[in-house]
Amino acid sequence: MGQVFETQRRVEFCETDAAGIVHFSSYVRYMEQAEHEFWRSLGTSVMQPLGDGVTQGWPRVRVECDFRGVARFEDVLSVELVIENLGQKSIRFRFEFKSEERVIASGRLTTVCCRVEHGQELKSIPISDELRELLGPYVVGDVCDSV
Amino acid sequence: MGQVFETQRRVEFCETDAAGIVHFSSYVRYMEQAEHEFWRSLGTSVMQPLGDGVTQGWPRVRVECDFRGVARFEDVLSVELVIENLGQKSIRFRFEFKSEERVIASGRLTTVCCRVEHGQELKSIPISDELRELLGPYVVGDVCDSV
Amino acid sequence: MGQVFETQRRVEFCETDAAGIVHFSSYVRYMEQAEHEFWRSLGTSVMQPLGDGVTQGWPRVRVECDFRGVARFEDVLSVELVIENLGQKSIRFRFEFKSEERVIASGRLTTVCCRVEHGQELKSIPISDELRELLGPYVVGDVCDSV
Amino acid sequence: MGQVFETQRRVEFCETDAAGIVHFSSYVRYMEQAEHEFWRSLGTSVMQPLGDGVTQGWPRVRVECDFRGVARFEDVLSVELVIENLGQKSIRFRFEFKSEERVIASGRLTTVCCRVEHGQELKSIPISDELRELLGPYVVGDVCDSV
Repeated sequence: MGQVFETQRRVEFCETDAAGIVHFSSYVRYMEQAEHEFWRSLGTSVMQPLGDGVTQGWPRVRVECDFRGVARFEDVLSVELVIENLGQKSIRFRFEFKSEERVIASGRLTTVCCRVEHGQELKSIPISDELRELLGPYVVGDVCDSV
Repeated sequence: MGQVFETQRRVEFCETDAAGIVHFSSYVRYMEQAEHEFWRSLGTSVMQPLGDGVTQGWPRVRVECDFRGVARFEDVLSVELVIENLGQKSIRFRFEFKSEERVIASGRLTTVCCRVEHGQELKSIPISDELRELLGPYVVGDVCDSV
Repeated sequence: MGQVFETQRRVEFCETDAAGIVHFSSYVRYMEQAEHEFWRSLGTSVMQPLGDGVTQGWPRVRVECDFRGVARFEDVLSVELVIENLGQKSIRFRFEFKSEERVIASGRLTTVCCRVEHGQELKSIPISDELRELLGPYVVGDVCDSV
Repeated sequence: MGQVFETQRRVEFCETDAAGIVHFSSYVRYMEQAEHEFWRSLGTSVMQPLGDGVTQGWPRVRVECDFRGVARFEDVLSVELVIENLGQKSIRFRFEFKSEERVIASGRLTTVCCRVEHGQELKSIPISDELRELLGPYVVGDVCDSV
């Protein structure tokens, strides 16, 4: 419990803005990119085929981010991901972005496990036991069952 | 008090993703774009020259967004902006995105009034009385003085 | 023949970069957005249902853009679109971006009329007579039949 | 002569569109990102301080790209960069994107060596001998002196 998934992200020029720094919306994308990399590190993907043209996906239901410092073109950010809440059908990730040991942004992303089928409504489904086992080590604090 | 700034935003193709819907990070950009349009509607800009190469800017310190529905390519979203908190040096905006009367996303953006000078650190400064007068009508509920 | 479709585009902050100007990739997006607006002005869309879950779409096969000047946050660009080539199955659009009467970028976008069906390969199809009639006025110079 | 700079790029979800594939404007960004990585591989940067607050930069004057296939979320693209033309003051890069040995896009990017100073007009300057020596091995065919 409490394992941290760590990765790095170099700031691209197109992610900066006329203030000379990383545009704040870029951190929202960095969070998702780190999450997707996390799924791959577990040997799976955020989009997982369930057979018969059905896919398991994780639509986002909430994002938040606090900005405490700035990053610039070519800075290499360290990104840390933990799971703050592992619900029956949802996950709340927490992210911390650091540049040279200084926290420059931190955020949360809540996603819901869903059955995705072309032309059908999304339907939330329970997170499988197999996935729960893979995710467990990254949960910090209590495992809640809400949602 | 409690006036709402309303605008519209048509979903562009490059703002959608492979799930066939608007990518969630696009709403974060829509919020900022609506905010900038709001400043222009007041006859000013989010970037306002203060003379001597100094600019008044509004760096973002926090964003959050809840996603309750989906929007697709060419949908026209109605966007509503109000001010939830008008502090001494900061503003917290609240946004609601609707598609055909249905709320599909709502969010908050907190910005801090700063003195921006090339090659200098950002410095937070009090919001001028002139601006406070322009902003006042859009404040909902109590005007707080925090931050 | 030779009619010009004209629109305007205000530069958003997230479209600028740390050089203080519009990031060059933004013009590529502006071209597509103007093209999509052009389709709407004709009373149709770049994505047009053909029935039975089949859609007519226009995948891009080539883009090019020359950059001759710069644009900045909140500049309002005038955008002009004409059709340089109306082939049997493809269109080559030409765009010109001006800021205060000065050309700051010009580009071309080539798209192919395709039958789009979920889970099937894209298949190029002839442009219908009905569409050709709508597009005709915007063709500059000769109407070629290549592609 | 004729050395190829090779890198890889994994497709992020936010770079796809509602057609289920990489949005064509993403390749334009991939080109720039590969170029910037190329500069770093040479031990320098696309933005290089020249002293006294002056920077050497490389504004883009032309981009073009042909799309021959599609890439999807999480595909890993191989990217190849060569220099097609090394002028007195400009470089024309050529890029090829492959997915599983199949070329899916190829493009060109022309950049001009410039002196960049805050509040001053950009001024094109000759490429230094030191840089020419670093760039030489990546030039394919003749070294032209145009521009």
